[in-house]
Amino acid sequence: MKFRPICLTLLFTLSPAVAAGQTLAEKLGYLADAKLLIIHADDVAETHAVNAATFQALESGAVNSASIMVPCPWFPEAADYAKSHPEADFGLHLTLTSERVYYRWGPVAGPTKVPSLVDSNGYFHHDWEQHPAIDPHDVETELRAQIERALAMGVRPTHFDSHQYRLIENGKEIFQVFVRLGHEYKVPVFVARDWLAEHPYLEAGLGPQDLILDHTVTISPDVPPEKWGDFYRDALKNLQPGITELVIHVGLDDDELRAATRERATWGSTWRQRDLDFFTSKEFRALLEQQHVRLITWREMAKAAAPR
Amino acid sequence: MKFRPICLTLLFTLSPAVAAGQTLAEKLGYLADAKLLIIHADDVAETHAVNAATFQALESGAVNSASIMVPCPWFPEAADYAKSHPEADFGLHLTLTSERVYYRWGPVAGPTKVPSLVDSNGYFHHDWEQHPAIDPHDVETELRAQIERALAMGVRPTHFDSHQYRLIENGKEIFQVFVRLGHEYKVPVFVARDWLAEHPYLEAGLGPQDLILDHTVTISPDVPPEKWGDFYRDALKNLQPGITELVIHVGLDDDELRAATRERATWGSTWRQRDLDFFTSKEFRALLEQQHVRLITWREMAKAAAPR
Repeated sequence: MKFRPICLTLLFTLSPAVAAGQTLAEKLGYLADAKLLIIHADDVAETHAVNAATFQALESGAVNSASIMVPCPWFPEAADYAKSHPEADFGLHLTLTSERVYYRWGPVAGPTKVPSLVDSNGYFHHDWEQHPAIDPHDVETELRAQIERALAMGVRPTHFDSHQYRLIENGKEIFQVFVRLGHEYKVPVFVARDWLAEHPYLEAGLGPQDLILDHTVTISPDVPPEKWGDFYRDALKNLQPGITELVIHVGLDDDELRAATRERATWGSTWRQRDLDFFTSKEFRALLEQQHVRLITWREMAKAAAPR
Repeated sequence: MKFRPICLTLLFTLSPAVAAGQTLAEKLGYLADAKLLIIHADDVAETHAVNAATFQALESGAVNSASIMVPCPWFPEAADYAKSHPEADFGLHLTLTSERVYYRWGPVAGPTKVPSLVDSNGYFHHDWEQHPAIDPHDVETELRAQIERALAMGVRPTHFDSHQYRLIENGKEIFQVFVRLGHEYKVPVFVARDWLAEHPYLEAGLGPQDLILDHTVTISPDVPPEKWGDFYRDALKNLQPGITELVIHVGLDDDELRAATRERATWGSTWRQRDLDFFTSKEFRALLEQQHVRLITWREMAKAAAPR
């Protein structure tokens, strides 16, 4: 199986010049008005249906980056794939919640090591709204366990991101754990400039060596299924200069994923099949070309940003 | 959804007489030459495909008993089903191994609480052959965690049995943990008289109040697929007097189960589909009637054996 990246030429335009006041795109050697895009599939390892769809999407060039949930039962399949496709751009989708009802997972560290992260049955909480007392020490213990398992099983992550944005949206201390682990493991963490106004601790917690993406785009539950294509067409036509991560959720609408997500439609099996269908369509590929979008991966960004 | 048990009349023949030297069937009120059968589906909760097949088999009367793997990710679906079908005969399939490659699970207690049970990535060992130092204290810690999670999530087990017979075949101390938990929770444990000669500690570890089934029958990997029906036809035609548990492994040969079991065919997706197909066939039902087999469940056995 071979990857067919849509754009392999971007690194030839890189310049070593790095100066104050430059955008991230300029720091990476692009013109200030370049539209750079990561097409990123979340939630790898959550189910087999998500793995199968993501591997298909990577191999067809529909997505060029993805991130893996280490606590989930299909992590061994994802790790095996990542090991046998070392060119693929896999990050870790650091996970502290188990948001479904009929299919669940818990912490890699074990429930007694991270008591604030688990419910009375030892699973990660469904959500954190009724559980404000998340202990940042537990967050660090669990994230280290996830990273160490991934490394031990052969995954070499190109980035870290956060399942359900838990590490972004829950205060300075939890965000600092995320950043600290990124620095320690020398792996960039996903933060977008779009988020800085709402959460000032994000910018305060980052240093000059950290990559801050310019924008992120993701479809929301208020888009009806019949408007799915319109949303993505508009997003691509209105793409802003700079680096954007388009966060999508691919999967197969099969028995497993239908059963695993049946209590609600959001990010469920038909949602994920719609994403897969749109991003593997000829229309999407044509749109990318029409809009003069350059694709970029986390691996390419880190390489371009590395001191020379 | 209603269950359609093949035989509901067996309890009318029960006698309260219990005397030394009687067989278990006689103690339960049956004639000594009665052929009593539990048709038991193992591995509920392992995958959704196993859950779906087991629920179908229970509802069609193809099986009349099953047991659930608490550490597996589909346990919440199984627990929800068991809670909403309180008449169904569900035991706990106590689990200390994670024998697949691409899809794995670990201890409910967490890896640091039961270090002898887990590999370096925190999953249960694939097998125990290279890991002789299983600590019986770890076994007890983990089994308690499984039982407590099941009770907390609404499962009321009619029996305990042992995934891959680990609690049966690995020495006196580990077997005694199994028996002790059965006594403590007042739940019968699955032991068959067939096994006593090979493992003398089994009989020594049991008391007069424990139920010892007479026989167990299960198909083995050396039966080729084309001989599947022959094996079960012969087994039913040669059924011995007494209580037999026929241990089967149902599942759907779908994408999920194919992927989860793809590294080897034993107890894999086509094996499980063959079991489901045979036991839901008209031929099987006709055979049961021809052979004058009476079906019995763990719940019925425990009720019949209870002091009056």
